[in-house]
Amino acid sequence: MIKPAIPQGTRDFASSVVLKRQYILNAIRDVFETTGYEPLETPAMELLETLTGKYGDEGDKLIFKILNNGLSDPAHSEKAKTGFQKILEGKNSDDITSRALRYDLTIPFARFVAMNRGTLHFPFKRYQMQPVWRADRPQKGRYREFTQCDADVVGSHSLWNEVELVHIYRNAFDALGLTEATITINNRKLLAALALKCGAPSLLTQITIAIDKLDKIGLDKVLESLAQNGLNDEQVNIVQTYLSITGSNSEKMDRISALLQGIPEAEKGIEELHFILERVPEHFVTIDFKLARGLDYYTGTIYEVKAPASVQMGSIGGGGRYDNLTELFGVEGISGVGISFGVDRIYDVMETLNLFPSDLNTHLKVLFFNMGEVESAQAFECCVAVQRAGISAMLYPDAVKMDKQFKYAQKRLIPYVVIIGSQELTDKKVVVKHLNTGNQVTLPINELISHLQNQTK
Amino acid sequence: MIKPAIPQGTRDFASSVVLKRQYILNAIRDVFETTGYEPLETPAMELLETLTGKYGDEGDKLIFKILNNGLSDPAHSEKAKTGFQKILEGKNSDDITSRALRYDLTIPFARFVAMNRGTLHFPFKRYQMQPVWRADRPQKGRYREFTQCDADVVGSHSLWNEVELVHIYRNAFDALGLTEATITINNRKLLAALALKCGAPSLLTQITIAIDKLDKIGLDKVLESLAQNGLNDEQVNIVQTYLSITGSNSEKMDRISALLQGIPEAEKGIEELHFILERVPEHFVTIDFKLARGLDYYTGTIYEVKAPASVQMGSIGGGGRYDNLTELFGVEGISGVGISFGVDRIYDVMETLNLFPSDLNTHLKVLFFNMGEVESAQAFECCVAVQRAGISAMLYPDAVKMDKQFKYAQKRLIPYVVIIGSQELTDKKVVVKHLNTGNQVTLPINELISHLQNQTK
Repeated sequence: MIKPAIPQGTRDFASSVVLKRQYILNAIRDVFETTGYEPLETPAMELLETLTGKYGDEGDKLIFKILNNGLSDPAHSEKAKTGFQKILEGKNSDDITSRALRYDLTIPFARFVAMNRGTLHFPFKRYQMQPVWRADRPQKGRYREFTQCDADVVGSHSLWNEVELVHIYRNAFDALGLTEATITINNRKLLAALALKCGAPSLLTQITIAIDKLDKIGLDKVLESLAQNGLNDEQVNIVQTYLSITGSNSEKMDRISALLQGIPEAEKGIEELHFILERVPEHFVTIDFKLARGLDYYTGTIYEVKAPASVQMGSIGGGGRYDNLTELFGVEGISGVGISFGVDRIYDVMETLNLFPSDLNTHLKVLFFNMGEVESAQAFECCVAVQRAGISAMLYPDAVKMDKQFKYAQKRLIPYVVIIGSQELTDKKVVVKHLNTGNQVTLPINELISHLQNQTK
Repeated sequence: MIKPAIPQGTRDFASSVVLKRQYILNAIRDVFETTGYEPLETPAMELLETLTGKYGDEGDKLIFKILNNGLSDPAHSEKAKTGFQKILEGKNSDDITSRALRYDLTIPFARFVAMNRGTLHFPFKRYQMQPVWRADRPQKGRYREFTQCDADVVGSHSLWNEVELVHIYRNAFDALGLTEATITINNRKLLAALALKCGAPSLLTQITIAIDKLDKIGLDKVLESLAQNGLNDEQVNIVQTYLSITGSNSEKMDRISALLQGIPEAEKGIEELHFILERVPEHFVTIDFKLARGLDYYTGTIYEVKAPASVQMGSIGGGGRYDNLTELFGVEGISGVGISFGVDRIYDVMETLNLFPSDLNTHLKVLFFNMGEVESAQAFECCVAVQRAGISAMLYPDAVKMDKQFKYAQKRLIPYVVIIGSQELTDKKVVVKHLNTGNQVTLPINELISHLQNQTK
C-alpha cells in the first residue's frame, strides 16, 4: 500500500479550479483569436539539446530531464556507466538523458519556426497555452508545473506588432476585470545606450541583471552591486539618474532624451517608444525605464504587466522584441515580438479580488431522484430527453434515501431536483423543486422541458 | 548551431490540427458536462511509486521517468552512485528518479480519489482530458505523447452508471458524425465463469490475455497459445465454443446462458448485461463475448468502441467497471466504472472519413491592408473597432506591396480584405474585397462594421 501523494510543487485541479482556469484561458484565447493569432501546440518533451544553453546557467539547472528507457539492457550497460559518470560531473549524456520537459513556450516556438520555415506564412502569428515545468524551489505563486500563455509574431520588424500586443494585453485584462493591471514598457536599446553612456558597453548584461532586481532589493543595493561589479562613481551616478526618471509618459520621454542624447542606439529606442505611445490610448501603457527583463534575447521593446496595486503579486505578464531567436537553430533574420500571460498568478490575483463570475460552478442543472426500479426507468428516460434539449442533467444512480440524494444536490450546487415517485409515475407527472428558493411545483411530465427552459434562461 | 528536431513519437500541432483536435475535445466535453461529469486535471508528473506496478511488467518499462535534479551535488554523490547501480540492474532508485510522467488518467484519478476521499461528494463523476506519455515504439496510430479523454464515476455500484456511459459514447460519436462506430460490451464475470467452467479459475488472467489478442492473431493462434499454457483439449474446446457464439444480442445472451449455466459468477454477469441491454436502445450496443480488455483491474462490464468498418483502425475507445482500484492506495470499497476516448485515433478516423467541418480554418475574417504610414493609422483604428464588434481582424504590419498582402490573405484563408488607400482616406471610405467571390465594394467607413456583420452571418 502506498500513501497517496503528488510531487512537491505540483497541484491537482478539482472542478471549481478547472472551471476558473478555463475562464481565464478562454478570455485570453478570445482576444488572441480576434487579433488573428493561430493556435500551436508543441510536445511536452523536447530534445535536451534544444533546451540546454538557452536559459542561462541557472535556468539549465532547473530543466527536468527524462531518463532514457532501457538502461538496464546489457547491450548498453558500458555506455550507461560512462554516461552516469558525466551526469555526476554535472554534464549531460545522451546515453542517460536525451529528452527534457518544456521549460517555456518561447524556445519550442523558435524551434518550430526554424523547423517549418519553408511552409509557414510570414508574418507568422501564433498563440500557445500549455504547461511548462521548472525544478524551482516551490513557494507562494511559484510552482514546478505552471501554465504559460504566449502570443508571438515573427517575420515582421513593424512596430505595429508592438502596438497590437499592447491592445491584446489591455483587452484581455479588461475582459478579466483586471482593469487596474498596469502595462509597463521600456526598450532594450535604451539600456544598451545607458551602458554606452557609462562608457562600458560590455557591461550591458550586468547592468540589465542588476536593474532587473530593483523591485526585489531596492535602489541602494542595485547601485552597490554595480559598484562591486567595477562601475566607478560617475558610472553609478549615470545609472542612478537613469533609474530616477519619473513623471508622465511624455515627461519621462523628454528626460531620457536629455540624458542619453547623441547616442544613436538611444535615439532608435526613443523613436520606437514614441511610435507605440502615439498609437495607443494614453492610459493603456506606462513608460518605466526601470524595467529590464532578465532574459538575454530581447533587443527592442520590452513589456511587463503589474498586478493591481491592492494585491501583492508583482509581474503577471511580460515579453518583448527579439531579433535573433531562431538563429540558435541556424535560421537568421527572423525578428519577432511576443508577450506572455502568467495564468497561475492571474488566477491568484482574481481569487484575491473576487473577480470570478459566481455561476462558474453550476454546470449541472438538474438531478433526477432515483425512487426505485420502475420509477428510475421513467426518470432516466426523462433525463435523456432533458439532456437532449441541451440542459445538463443526471439520474442519481442508486435508489438510496431521498435525504442522501438531496444532500448530493446541495453539495454539487445543482439548482433543480426532479422527483418521479410511484404516484407521479401513475399520474404521468413530475415534481420539480428549486433548491435555491425551496419552491416546488407538480407538472405533467411533457411540460418538464419547457418549464426547465424557462427557469434556466 | 543545432538542427531543429523533436523527439521520436511526438508531434507539433499546427493551427489547423489544433482546431480539429479542439473540435473533437469540445464535442466530447459537451457530452460529459451535459451528463453531470466534473472536470479534473492532475499534474503531468506523478511520484514514481504511484505509477510502478500498476500497468504490468510491460507497462512499467514504458513509463518515462524523470531524472532528479542536483545529482552532481557532491553531498549526494555517494547515494547517486549506488542509485545508478540499481538503475543498471533494472530497479528503481529514489536517489536517481522519484517522479515519472503520467502513463494514463485512471491511476492518477484513483490516487486523487484516495487523497481527497474526505471532501469528495460520492458518487463522484469526473472527466479528464490530458496528454499521457508512453515509451512505446512509435508506429502508425501510436505516439509517445497522446491525449486521453476519460469519464469515470466512483462510489456507486449501480448499473445505471454503465447505462449512462453507453449513452455518453453514443452521443459523443453521433456528435462527431461517427454514427457507424460500434460500441461493444462484455462482462468480466463471464470470463471468470469461463475459467471456472474450464475447471481452472487460476487461469483467468491467461485466458483473458489470450482472448485479448484475438483481433491481432486470430482464433487458431489463441487456442494454440492456451494449449501451450496448459489447457487440455476439453478446456480449449470450451473456450472455442465460448468464442464462437454469434447472433443478435438476445441470441448471444441465450447461448451464453446455456454454455455457462449453473455458475453463479456467470449468472451475475448475465444479469448485469441484461440490465444494460434492457435500458438502452437496441442499436446502441453490440454484445461481444470475444471482448476481454487487457487490464487486470476490470471486474464487471467492459466496453470497447470499434471504428467504422470502412477504416482500418481498431479500437477508438474502451473502459469498464473496477471494484478495487483505490485499494492500491489503501482505500477500499470504492467501486467505479469509466470509459476512455482515444482522441488521436478518433482524429485519424475523422480525417480519413472527411468528417471535420470545412470552416474550422477560418478564425480570421478580415485583413486590413497596410498602405503606408498615415493610411495604416486609419486602418488600425478601423481594425480595432471591427475586433470590438466581435469580428476577428488584423492589420498587415508592414507596408509592403499589395501583391504580398493579398498572398498572405490567401494563404491564411482570410475571406475579406479591407483597403484604405490615400483616396479612401480622403473620402472617408473603405474598399472591401471578398476573396472567395472576387466581389469588391466601396463603402463609407462608418458602414464597414454593419457590412461585415451582414456578410459573416
